[in-house]
Amino acid sequence: MSTLLRQLKGPQDLKQMTLVELHQLADELRGQIIDTVSRTGGHLASSLGIVELTLALHYVFNSPDDHLVWDVGHQAYAHKLLTGRLERFDSLRQLDGISGFPKRAESPHDCFDVGHSSTSISAALGMAVGRDSKRKHNKVVAVIGDGSLTAGLAFEALNHAGHLDRDLIIILNDNEMSISANVGALSSFLSRKMTSRFFVRFKRETENFLNSVPRFGKDLVQLAKRTEDSFKAFVTPGMLFEAFGIEYVGPIDGHQLDEVIETLQNVSALKGPTLVHVLTRKGKGYLPAEQNPSLFHGVGPFDKLSGQVVEASDKKPSYTDVFGDYLCQLASEQPRLVALTAAMCTGTGLVPFAKRFPERFFDVGIAEQHAVTCAAGMACEGLKPVVAIYSTFLQRAYDNVLHDVCLQNLPVIFALDRGGLVGADGPTHHGVFDFSFLRHIPNLTLVAPRDEIELKRAMLSALASPGPYAYRYPRGEVRGLAEPEAISPLPNGKGELLRPGTCACLVSLGTCAEEALAAAELLATEGLELAVVDARFLKPLDEELILAQLDTCGALITLEENVLAGGFGSAVLELLEQHGRYEPLLRLGLPDQFVEQGSQSQLRARYGLDATGIARQIKDFLARLNRPAKGGRP
Amino acid sequence: MSTLLRQLKGPQDLKQMTLVELHQLADELRGQIIDTVSRTGGHLASSLGIVELTLALHYVFNSPDDHLVWDVGHQAYAHKLLTGRLERFDSLRQLDGISGFPKRAESPHDCFDVGHSSTSISAALGMAVGRDSKRKHNKVVAVIGDGSLTAGLAFEALNHAGHLDRDLIIILNDNEMSISANVGALSSFLSRKMTSRFFVRFKRETENFLNSVPRFGKDLVQLAKRTEDSFKAFVTPGMLFEAFGIEYVGPIDGHQLDEVIETLQNVSALKGPTLVHVLTRKGKGYLPAEQNPSLFHGVGPFDKLSGQVVEASDKKPSYTDVFGDYLCQLASEQPRLVALTAAMCTGTGLVPFAKRFPERFFDVGIAEQHAVTCAAGMACEGLKPVVAIYSTFLQRAYDNVLHDVCLQNLPVIFALDRGGLVGADGPTHHGVFDFSFLRHIPNLTLVAPRDEIELKRAMLSALASPGPYAYRYPRGEVRGLAEPEAISPLPNGKGELLRPGTCACLVSLGTCAEEALAAAELLATEGLELAVVDARFLKPLDEELILAQLDTCGALITLEENVLAGGFGSAVLELLEQHGRYEPLLRLGLPDQFVEQGSQSQLRARYGLDATGIARQIKDFLARLNRPAKGGRP
Repeated sequence: MSTLLRQLKGPQDLKQMTLVELHQLADELRGQIIDTVSRTGGHLASSLGIVELTLALHYVFNSPDDHLVWDVGHQAYAHKLLTGRLERFDSLRQLDGISGFPKRAESPHDCFDVGHSSTSISAALGMAVGRDSKRKHNKVVAVIGDGSLTAGLAFEALNHAGHLDRDLIIILNDNEMSISANVGALSSFLSRKMTSRFFVRFKRETENFLNSVPRFGKDLVQLAKRTEDSFKAFVTPGMLFEAFGIEYVGPIDGHQLDEVIETLQNVSALKGPTLVHVLTRKGKGYLPAEQNPSLFHGVGPFDKLSGQVVEASDKKPSYTDVFGDYLCQLASEQPRLVALTAAMCTGTGLVPFAKRFPERFFDVGIAEQHAVTCAAGMACEGLKPVVAIYSTFLQRAYDNVLHDVCLQNLPVIFALDRGGLVGADGPTHHGVFDFSFLRHIPNLTLVAPRDEIELKRAMLSALASPGPYAYRYPRGEVRGLAEPEAISPLPNGKGELLRPGTCACLVSLGTCAEEALAAAELLATEGLELAVVDARFLKPLDEELILAQLDTCGALITLEENVLAGGFGSAVLELLEQHGRYEPLLRLGLPDQFVEQGSQSQLRARYGLDATGIARQIKDFLARLNRPAKGGRP
Repeated sequence: MSTLLRQLKGPQDLKQMTLVELHQLADELRGQIIDTVSRTGGHLASSLGIVELTLALHYVFNSPDDHLVWDVGHQAYAHKLLTGRLERFDSLRQLDGISGFPKRAESPHDCFDVGHSSTSISAALGMAVGRDSKRKHNKVVAVIGDGSLTAGLAFEALNHAGHLDRDLIIILNDNEMSISANVGALSSFLSRKMTSRFFVRFKRETENFLNSVPRFGKDLVQLAKRTEDSFKAFVTPGMLFEAFGIEYVGPIDGHQLDEVIETLQNVSALKGPTLVHVLTRKGKGYLPAEQNPSLFHGVGPFDKLSGQVVEASDKKPSYTDVFGDYLCQLASEQPRLVALTAAMCTGTGLVPFAKRFPERFFDVGIAEQHAVTCAAGMACEGLKPVVAIYSTFLQRAYDNVLHDVCLQNLPVIFALDRGGLVGADGPTHHGVFDFSFLRHIPNLTLVAPRDEIELKRAMLSALASPGPYAYRYPRGEVRGLAEPEAISPLPNGKGELLRPGTCACLVSLGTCAEEALAAAELLATEGLELAVVDARFLKPLDEELILAQLDTCGALITLEENVLAGGFGSAVLELLEQHGRYEPLLRLGLPDQFVEQGSQSQLRARYGLDATGIARQIKDFLARLNRPAKGGRP
């Protein structure tokens, strides 16, 4: 098994292979990818869909001299296997293993770090400019999905690429999906579904033409037919790119290796920017993934034969599930509530909402900026828009949050999923900057609920807020608490004392409250009675509660799953400064570096954010303060 | 003078006017705008270019029931004059006066706050959805310039608008400029400059058609001609919008009032999204502005008759000038240096660079995201890209800075112009969030030079940096210091003690060092010897210097022109916490609110950031600490 793959020294070896061997290699690559991902989890469907295309790219081009710039990068598993990472492939997405995305530090064949969508054309254009300045002649190839093309960044790059006219190859990997099924006018156009507006003019122009030509008697019917055909031939998905000054080639079948290779060979000789439209099938070659590409987009471990995803029988719902379900309940009571997602209907748990309230559900495509500003417009008209978005992707819409929502104090609700450490997706996906990039924005209320009940309370409170409101919750399972009879809104800006204590007060924000309480238990066994507060609100802070605890305990510790710089602990420091309180405070959180991949618990342990790590750091802190082992202020 | 304008009760009065009266009103509006802006300064050229269009919009539609959503908003002066703000128009852009941009708080006719570009289609689409949910039938009209259309956000909105198919009118105000002359493939396309790629296919399709029809003998020549014409008629700027499912109308002459009115009347009856392409001339009706629309885009006070901009004879160069000139000098020594701007060549001082190094100058259009990611690609190939950008506009590219530059630790240089308070443009333009949204990003070096010499030193240092480097400087004149013989790089992460002292140490960052020293002088007259440090680096902080001053003085004050939340003072608080130092610290900066318009000095005075305000706050602080009036630590 995997004979050819194992023999491969590098991508240059492909060039000696026959078409039959390349097809066998394609099978081996698929087998390896399915085998590994069934154990590690990962982005299966995209990587399977692009196996032949990847082989053709490495067959025709000379990586790393020629640069392959993968957009998003979750489709690059075959590329990784072909470029020296077969031996380590089992460590895919594991702590200290190889990344699920291209990474410059990992291989010279990975020429740009990715994870977020739609950066490839911009980066590749920059590389083309750099190449030209060195008077070199290597090829630069961006590989971008049709979903990624809906983001404004890709459009900005196309506009500039057409203008600059450098040699640049753009491969449009069109599987008619982003992560879920694609939306937007662009997507229809690519699949040659002529818009009705286009069609009307098309008919009109045909008639105009026929009226303009002299009478040809009996041939007229034939002429009309040919005219229409001719106009139709003119209307291709390529028109859009040609309008930008980009040569269009295709569409071609991305699973016909010979056709793809031949096309790429032809294209590599062209001057200027060229786009090759390649049709692929997400999940290709693995029936369960072909049938359910959305489920197998990013998937956990699964049974290879049945395609059944492995789930613990006692699995609790995720925070995402709780959000999605409760949003439906809120929507049934509040007819002004609408929900928006940027191509992440499944990921953000909005599938039930989209089914129950199709008129109130808006998937805008991979377009976070537009999602936020469109929501601002909705709020102006009295709607209650909930923008459900991963923390890391809201980074794309920072200015829209600030300039279009908060400046006008509009009641837009941000449901920030995947806040904190997300695990295997690593540095591009951890939601560990949101506290820092949001808390300085005036008018915004920001809550990080500690559990699923509190999440529901925050969701309820947000609906009543006269201004912008964000609630941030993590990836992963809820605690499984018993449901109260009724959900009550959160008292605005009020935290909660979870555990009284005397030696110091640990103030945590978000779901790390659980580890905070566990740390307090550990310290209690050593005679240290730690108070634990759930701050609940990053903004506005519960000044009264925090200062009262400082009075009682004489020292504070803050805990957050966010970078320390500018985060929650920093906000508490500012609070103390504002009140002229210069007492001991220790901040626990993530350091000033990008956090690598690994399971959430592994990473928490590594950064001292599990109960043991927290307890240890607090003990050291108290020791430095020369506090007595028990009791209150010295 | 201004008879009709003075009689106008509101925009509904326009509907009774004759075309002759409307033309007179157009003249009056222009007169009033030129008169006021010649005294207050402001966005002249855009507002003059759109007078007839504004009249037509208010003539045809019923604001505020119908919503006019102005993109950017600097073109809305005529709109302001027609909607009840004539009396206060002299206070335009003044402290507590009317805003230079539409503002919901100012008038019900301003339905969306703007300032940054390309938000109007998103906002209008959101409003259209809101309207439909209320089963109302008012019109929603977005007015967007061709420059604004180059931003990805506008494209995301077009894609969604075509998909949703709501009733929505988009007015494309096409003056073939953004702030400077437009760039990009889109712009060529709008002006019917068919790209060569398009042209090739166009010829081919024509030939294909001719070959496909039966022989018509002598009529063939005529048929060929008609076929070509027919294809040509099919290729219009509208094609692009029709491809998105948006009806295209135009282009029409935006200064022919009757034509514009008739078109808008027709369009207002159409269903679905419609784009009206209106050609206007920037600066229309005022010769100096027509001849130099870039200068009169945003202009200071000028002489109405001559069109000469009023400048003090002893005017010093601006920080922007110093940046632009020194960048040329650096570029002449460093051939790898390239410069990028997002449609702000003039504003960022890159005009001399663009002239001297046209091959190394890249104006990407209003596309901040792409500018940053493209620069990342350039840096991968060994170029030294300098992204010159206003602080407030870098907000659009937050994720690109974080995910595409800093994550890979690429040596991209950010020249952050207009950092701090910018004055009359107000809350949408102050650069007072950058310290907070940048300092938590790992790998980034961030300097805020205190004067023009230090700016040059930072620019020199940045070129040698192996990782990303940002220098932030303000709007306005430099200090006029004598040029040293040679510019030396800044010692990395090192601040400078500007003035020794004992009672406390004031640590400032950026050009507020000048006010800091002046405050120290004021305090010295009362016997308080304040040390003053220029921190220079926000990241990495000069720990050694700051802690040493804390040792000497026992108390610190931080000073910055940035919001206090998460800013420089917050970083110093974190530093002290990291070192277990819990000593008195006072942070001076901007509060947690959006800062209004006003001159820089007025705003500094209002927020206590001028020498007097700083001195007063420090005195109060020291008094609270019960410090002795003189001497060191108590």
